[in-house]
Amino acid sequence: MNGAPTEPEVVDEVHGVAADIGSMEIRGAATIADTAARALGVQAAESEADEPSTFRAQLRAAARVLYDTRPTAVSLPNALRYVFRDVEGTTVEELRTSVRASVAEFRDRLDTAQNDLGRVGANRLRDGDTVMTHCHSTDVLACIETAVEQGKSLSAYVKETRPRNQGHITADALADIGVDVTLIVDSAARRYLNDVDHVLVGADSIAADGSVINKIGTSGLAVNARDRGTPIVCAAQTIKLHPGTLTGHTVDIEMRAESEVIDDEQAAKIGDPTVLNPAFDVTPPRYVDAIVTERGQYPPESIVTLMRDLFGEGSDHPWDA
Amino acid sequence: MNGAPTEPEVVDEVHGVAADIGSMEIRGAATIADTAARALGVQAAESEADEPSTFRAQLRAAARVLYDTRPTAVSLPNALRYVFRDVEGTTVEELRTSVRASVAEFRDRLDTAQNDLGRVGANRLRDGDTVMTHCHSTDVLACIETAVEQGKSLSAYVKETRPRNQGHITADALADIGVDVTLIVDSAARRYLNDVDHVLVGADSIAADGSVINKIGTSGLAVNARDRGTPIVCAAQTIKLHPGTLTGHTVDIEMRAESEVIDDEQAAKIGDPTVLNPAFDVTPPRYVDAIVTERGQYPPESIVTLMRDLFGEGSDHPWDA
Amino acid sequence: MNGAPTEPEVVDEVHGVAADIGSMEIRGAATIADTAARALGVQAAESEADEPSTFRAQLRAAARVLYDTRPTAVSLPNALRYVFRDVEGTTVEELRTSVRASVAEFRDRLDTAQNDLGRVGANRLRDGDTVMTHCHSTDVLACIETAVEQGKSLSAYVKETRPRNQGHITADALADIGVDVTLIVDSAARRYLNDVDHVLVGADSIAADGSVINKIGTSGLAVNARDRGTPIVCAAQTIKLHPGTLTGHTVDIEMRAESEVIDDEQAAKIGDPTVLNPAFDVTPPRYVDAIVTERGQYPPESIVTLMRDLFGEGSDHPWDA
Amino acid sequence: MNGAPTEPEVVDEVHGVAADIGSMEIRGAATIADTAARALGVQAAESEADEPSTFRAQLRAAARVLYDTRPTAVSLPNALRYVFRDVEGTTVEELRTSVRASVAEFRDRLDTAQNDLGRVGANRLRDGDTVMTHCHSTDVLACIETAVEQGKSLSAYVKETRPRNQGHITADALADIGVDVTLIVDSAARRYLNDVDHVLVGADSIAADGSVINKIGTSGLAVNARDRGTPIVCAAQTIKLHPGTLTGHTVDIEMRAESEVIDDEQAAKIGDPTVLNPAFDVTPPRYVDAIVTERGQYPPESIVTLMRDLFGEGSDHPWDA
Amino acid sequence: MNGAPTEPEVVDEVHGVAADIGSMEIRGAATIADTAARALGVQAAESEADEPSTFRAQLRAAARVLYDTRPTAVSLPNALRYVFRDVEGTTVEELRTSVRASVAEFRDRLDTAQNDLGRVGANRLRDGDTVMTHCHSTDVLACIETAVEQGKSLSAYVKETRPRNQGHITADALADIGVDVTLIVDSAARRYLNDVDHVLVGADSIAADGSVINKIGTSGLAVNARDRGTPIVCAAQTIKLHPGTLTGHTVDIEMRAESEVIDDEQAAKIGDPTVLNPAFDVTPPRYVDAIVTERGQYPPESIVTLMRDLFGEGSDHPWDA
Amino acid sequence: MNGAPTEPEVVDEVHGVAADIGSMEIRGAATIADTAARALGVQAAESEADEPSTFRAQLRAAARVLYDTRPTAVSLPNALRYVFRDVEGTTVEELRTSVRASVAEFRDRLDTAQNDLGRVGANRLRDGDTVMTHCHSTDVLACIETAVEQGKSLSAYVKETRPRNQGHITADALADIGVDVTLIVDSAARRYLNDVDHVLVGADSIAADGSVINKIGTSGLAVNARDRGTPIVCAAQTIKLHPGTLTGHTVDIEMRAESEVIDDEQAAKIGDPTVLNPAFDVTPPRYVDAIVTERGQYPPESIVTLMRDLFGEGSDHPWDA
Repeated sequence: MNGAPTEPEVVDEVHGVAADIGSMEIRGAATIADTAARALGVQAAESEADEPSTFRAQLRAAARVLYDTRPTAVSLPNALRYVFRDVEGTTVEELRTSVRASVAEFRDRLDTAQNDLGRVGANRLRDGDTVMTHCHSTDVLACIETAVEQGKSLSAYVKETRPRNQGHITADALADIGVDVTLIVDSAARRYLNDVDHVLVGADSIAADGSVINKIGTSGLAVNARDRGTPIVCAAQTIKLHPGTLTGHTVDIEMRAESEVIDDEQAAKIGDPTVLNPAFDVTPPRYVDAIVTERGQYPPESIVTLMRDLFGEGSDHPWDA
Repeated sequence: MNGAPTEPEVVDEVHGVAADIGSMEIRGAATIADTAARALGVQAAESEADEPSTFRAQLRAAARVLYDTRPTAVSLPNALRYVFRDVEGTTVEELRTSVRASVAEFRDRLDTAQNDLGRVGANRLRDGDTVMTHCHSTDVLACIETAVEQGKSLSAYVKETRPRNQGHITADALADIGVDVTLIVDSAARRYLNDVDHVLVGADSIAADGSVINKIGTSGLAVNARDRGTPIVCAAQTIKLHPGTLTGHTVDIEMRAESEVIDDEQAAKIGDPTVLNPAFDVTPPRYVDAIVTERGQYPPESIVTLMRDLFGEGSDHPWDA
Repeated sequence: MNGAPTEPEVVDEVHGVAADIGSMEIRGAATIADTAARALGVQAAESEADEPSTFRAQLRAAARVLYDTRPTAVSLPNALRYVFRDVEGTTVEELRTSVRASVAEFRDRLDTAQNDLGRVGANRLRDGDTVMTHCHSTDVLACIETAVEQGKSLSAYVKETRPRNQGHITADALADIGVDVTLIVDSAARRYLNDVDHVLVGADSIAADGSVINKIGTSGLAVNARDRGTPIVCAAQTIKLHPGTLTGHTVDIEMRAESEVIDDEQAAKIGDPTVLNPAFDVTPPRYVDAIVTERGQYPPESIVTLMRDLFGEGSDHPWDA
Repeated sequence: MNGAPTEPEVVDEVHGVAADIGSMEIRGAATIADTAARALGVQAAESEADEPSTFRAQLRAAARVLYDTRPTAVSLPNALRYVFRDVEGTTVEELRTSVRASVAEFRDRLDTAQNDLGRVGANRLRDGDTVMTHCHSTDVLACIETAVEQGKSLSAYVKETRPRNQGHITADALADIGVDVTLIVDSAARRYLNDVDHVLVGADSIAADGSVINKIGTSGLAVNARDRGTPIVCAAQTIKLHPGTLTGHTVDIEMRAESEVIDDEQAAKIGDPTVLNPAFDVTPPRYVDAIVTERGQYPPESIVTLMRDLFGEGSDHPWDA
Repeated sequence: MNGAPTEPEVVDEVHGVAADIGSMEIRGAATIADTAARALGVQAAESEADEPSTFRAQLRAAARVLYDTRPTAVSLPNALRYVFRDVEGTTVEELRTSVRASVAEFRDRLDTAQNDLGRVGANRLRDGDTVMTHCHSTDVLACIETAVEQGKSLSAYVKETRPRNQGHITADALADIGVDVTLIVDSAARRYLNDVDHVLVGADSIAADGSVINKIGTSGLAVNARDRGTPIVCAAQTIKLHPGTLTGHTVDIEMRAESEVIDDEQAAKIGDPTVLNPAFDVTPPRYVDAIVTERGQYPPESIVTLMRDLFGEGSDHPWDA
Repeated sequence: MNGAPTEPEVVDEVHGVAADIGSMEIRGAATIADTAARALGVQAAESEADEPSTFRAQLRAAARVLYDTRPTAVSLPNALRYVFRDVEGTTVEELRTSVRASVAEFRDRLDTAQNDLGRVGANRLRDGDTVMTHCHSTDVLACIETAVEQGKSLSAYVKETRPRNQGHITADALADIGVDVTLIVDSAARRYLNDVDHVLVGADSIAADGSVINKIGTSGLAVNARDRGTPIVCAAQTIKLHPGTLTGHTVDIEMRAESEVIDDEQAAKIGDPTVLNPAFDVTPPRYVDAIVTERGQYPPESIVTLMRDLFGEGSDHPWDA
């Protein structure tokens, strides 16, 4: 520790990135993670610390600045944890090198993650298979695209996914790559599950107890898939693994605008009911067959081991990882 | 049998009613059943038959005229079966009296059925309970209304029920009678099932194997209700009991217009996917706790005994009942 | 109807019996049913009515007097319904004879019911079988006793059945007839279920939806028996079939004294917690393999048909059966 | 009652039929039932009784003679029960007429039962469906044949059904009528259940608690069918309804010769293990979707009501029905 | 190895601690673990070995002395394994330092484990939640206490937990910290599960196959919680992870005194039944949602990985770890 | 990399072993693994490379030669992965030493694996237990043998395992060591599951999602074992862990000769049906209680962590491990 109780010096780049994340100019799980990691690298590169302890203190301070912009995000603390996990060295230069290597490795992995995940997921699909999708997930899309690139012919039941109909985006993307698409309302899913070989869903985040937090409707679909004997797979990059859940924290479910469900005029006509519009729900691990990540596939009950390997044991703050 | 192979004489009233049913001027399960039964009564009243066999032949012919207008309907053959089941007598006058009594009894029962059913269903609800509804069912509404009239305070989660949003009608009707309504998208149902005391659904028809045919989405909801430990009740008048299923016939599921799911312009933008829009699905009896009828409540596995009591053993034609 | 709006004359015997039931001098499901039926017989025998309508009005009035003593009991309205169901005749004498025959038949059946039930239940047990019991049920005891009389050697796991330890009574009774008894706490039941061939429970009442209302702990035991693959049978005479549930009425669960669970002194020592002591719980039909009655055995899902055969369709009042 | 304690006179025909059943010259559930009913008819026709009581005593004696030949059979007591159930009359002639009518009705029904059952079962099958069979059942065959006659194209997975490979008979019969047959070992069933629309099995007998007693392997198949979401139907004529089970009797499972499983020489080579070769197993009703009979289809949980309608309430002896 | 076959020298402190554990003067899982680890540290500190091999032999001998006092305990071998796992060095001094560091780390972790665990468990609880408890567990208590300290308002259903009523201790402790307590008999648990947000149980030990060994009644409660859709969490420090189960050893279930279930006098009155009083039962991992430890939460199916990380791969003796 | 694009030199021994594996002269999972590892050791020993990069290229080339002989085998790539995983060194000699050490360690572990596994499995069995087996597995046999050597008395239900009756081999082997054997047809398994304490099966391979690929019939047995509450354990050495599944590859199921199911003559007689004879099926992890390996026991959901520890993260080729 340095003797004086002054604030450790955080470089401008970090403050700039933090501002952009806070204002949502930088957004998307992967982009936030990438930019935050890069900013830590700049902090390491530009630090003028003389003492290792000063260097470390600055790095922690930089992490905190970034973290405080979106404390409930998933990918941001993961990026910070990943970098901090392996920092080692007894001199400032060793530390600097260590941080930059860690940052580079994280960004490299992130860069190839979706492709790698796509290959893993595609390997589960066979020529002629029919899949069912819920909402729109680029990770799910990567699996199907890779399978199609491997020469497999696929069909898809695409749930429209009320209230925002992201299923339309999925339908469009799948049609573009030659998948035979059937669009259905969400309530029709069970009726077609016996014709489906794989239910494929993404994730907003994944908890240490193996639960999958994903677009509202996922859990009801999963329970029906299990009842019908249809396998269900969650495709999710490891930056979706929720670090706070390692220490028991639950994931807050965002409640979205009523107007997504019914517009004001219509609502008025039917007596202005309360409208609840949760963005996500929680699917317990026993209803999911596998989680496909860029690091391979896992039963949901063991994803916690990957979570700990990648991001540490789950301290309250990423910089204590 | 009368010697001559002439067509038995069917009165004008029967032909008129048949035409109106065929053209859908007369519609709605209860209205069709009521009108058809009344027409058989007119046939009996106006028959000029001299011989009992002639009278019976005319009555069968009248039934066939009515039946042929909508051979896949449920309530129409039930009305016919109900009337034919108990016809007895050795003279024309005895037969005439018997038919008219049977018609009157059927129509009387029909007239009070919804109220009677509502009382049965209401008895299952307790003050302070929360229900969840799917689609719009006047039989379900009768249960809730009666409970409210009994002084019970109720809350309701109302599923919007894509694609036609009949949940809005239910929301409006429930708000009118003072029920505290929360509107949700269909996919959000599971999330709120643990807060719900009863799931209440109607039926398009009920099969002899105990299956409930109802608005698409019912079966997926029922599987989730069972998984969450929430009781689920189907409210359905006995005219919904599907006579053809006694002899193994399956119920054809109507496929409705694609435009209910997505309009042409939007569909074109996303690659013109196939759209499948089934009106109903089939819920196996093991996922339903009770069927509430105007004749009391039944486990779905024993509704077949009521079906046989009311409508006979299940011949191919109602007039052979 | 008799012209004057006077109260129909109810004989003293009926008032006397009603008083004794109300004061609980007459108690026990079978005794109440027997006495009430007998009282109706006396009413019929002693009625001085001149007109059939007067006779019927008196009989209804007598039934109401009896019914009002314990409106939530099960066996009392069943006795009344049984008698009323088959009353027929166009003269006072015919009616009188009809009532007395019906009363006699009901009482005869009641008299032999437990033996008959015991034979049915015993037939399910094989030499060398092990049973598990919960609480104390004379109907269950009848099954085991008859099996022992048939020369079968049986063992029993007897749950103590907190809070009142009725299991001790069962243990004593079984030991008396040579059954090899093992006493366990309620929580140990699951541990021994794999060594058990039949779980045998009684019933406080049985509902039209096939639910079994029985001593608290029955439902939890039944769920575990199903999970372990152990058959579970409910032994219950038909007077336990709850007539009110035909029309959807639910069964109120009696809350018993806190002092059965913990005495005041102990409670004070641990902070005077709220104590809830429900007497019964509700086991859904899907967790029960068979209901054994004196009229044979039934899957719980079809007991409603026996209920209707015996006691009518479920009007609100027994005298309208 | 006739004053003298002499044996009631039983006609020769009855003794002859009894001998042939006992020696297994007459065999097959339907043939036994038909012949036994006919014999009772002969008894009624040839009885020289003067008194109704004598006539009845003779009829009971004849029934007992027949019954004692195969007391554990199913169809034999059903035939007797059916005849006795509706015998009525106050003179010998009335009784004679009543018996003969009842015999004729039973035999008529039996004669058309398999065709009627086939139509009910066929109605559940759709064009293009794939079925899976276990063992060989002429009732199942009737369903498939009728469906093919209705113009439906069907495929079948046929389990070989060790140890006696009755699946080969089924395969042959299905191939003959143009069904596309795939033969598999019993263990391969689960692997193909997701490609199957209906599992179809017969029954050796059906119990009052809704259990299906059928060829060993049925229950394991049924559990897997439920797990895979594949409907399973049992096709069984009503003479398979086991009357003894109404009063709780269990069905003894025949243990067949070890040599069906392994021949002596092979057994000696592997250390002469104990060999257990049960002919049948018991499938609980919760794993069966429907029982198809010539009287229509039923959920297994309500077959008891049909059993009672047809054969009475379940006295210990058919002549007390 | 030292050349002479003499017994390696074990210091007095170790013998003393072993004696105290054997005589149960030292007891409680954490206390035993702490004292045993400390004794190994003393052995290391006071060893007069010249050769590393001698030092190691002494350490193993000391471990064996401690281990042999209670070979079936859980926390004792864990303490030994933890210390042995990381012992390294090529000189006596290096080994000594390594042992002492390992001992210190183990004891430090033990010291803070319950607090750390409490924080993890508390994070799963939300303000306003209702929990249900079984038996008394200080780890469960730590979770609830921490949640209350975080300002959350909680209610609790407390099962009395026959035969020793440890639920009274829990009720008292919860009342003390302001939790709203409702006391129920064990059999009433299912009835209230739908009002409960979390079932919280402790553990006597946890097996490598994910099973939770805990107070008798836990498994039956867990099966019902799953059936009702209520999450169930096991709170257990890592010293409860049973090392012997890594190599397949099963956990012996202690049978406790009959007198806990029924006193001699009462038993005599009811025919002196056999009384079985198992202390614990085994809950399979599929009925438990999460295991909360001081190292974070885990699905029970992956606790084996933590077990191996902490205590090695599961040799037969801790000193071979 | 060496500058010249010449093929790296692979020693003769490797080519010889590859030829023998390809021609199936070398077969059996363990033998293939052992020989392949040994060949890599010879490659390392005899390599004449001057540069580390040349040495590595040769080693990779040798691995590829071996791998290409049976790309779908399981144990072969595992052997290669195991060796490659820990190769390290900056000089040829260091690399050579590293490879040979890794080869030796792998072969040592392989040599003792079955004994080690047997001890783990035996520890789960208690004196007096009854097991059920499917097919023939030397790993299962090792568990039972070790238990018998530990002095435990065991009984076994042995399924014959059509079509090749490997159950006969198991029956013989168990009889030899004094186990009380009962032979049954595969379809009889469910009937005896309630008398069984453990179902024991082997594995052809185990997938990263926890699925067990084993002899056809395993999955159907597992589903029934779960339904009956009977634990089921899979005994499998770690060389059965399928490396390709880490990256999502599915396991191809071998289809074997029709003649194993039915001979040509018989087939012709029954209309020459299609015959499907899959060698294996896939059991999802939720139906398996534990996987017993030589490295201890695991819930199937966490076997992926062992797979990764032993064989790396799952690259497409073993030499990239």
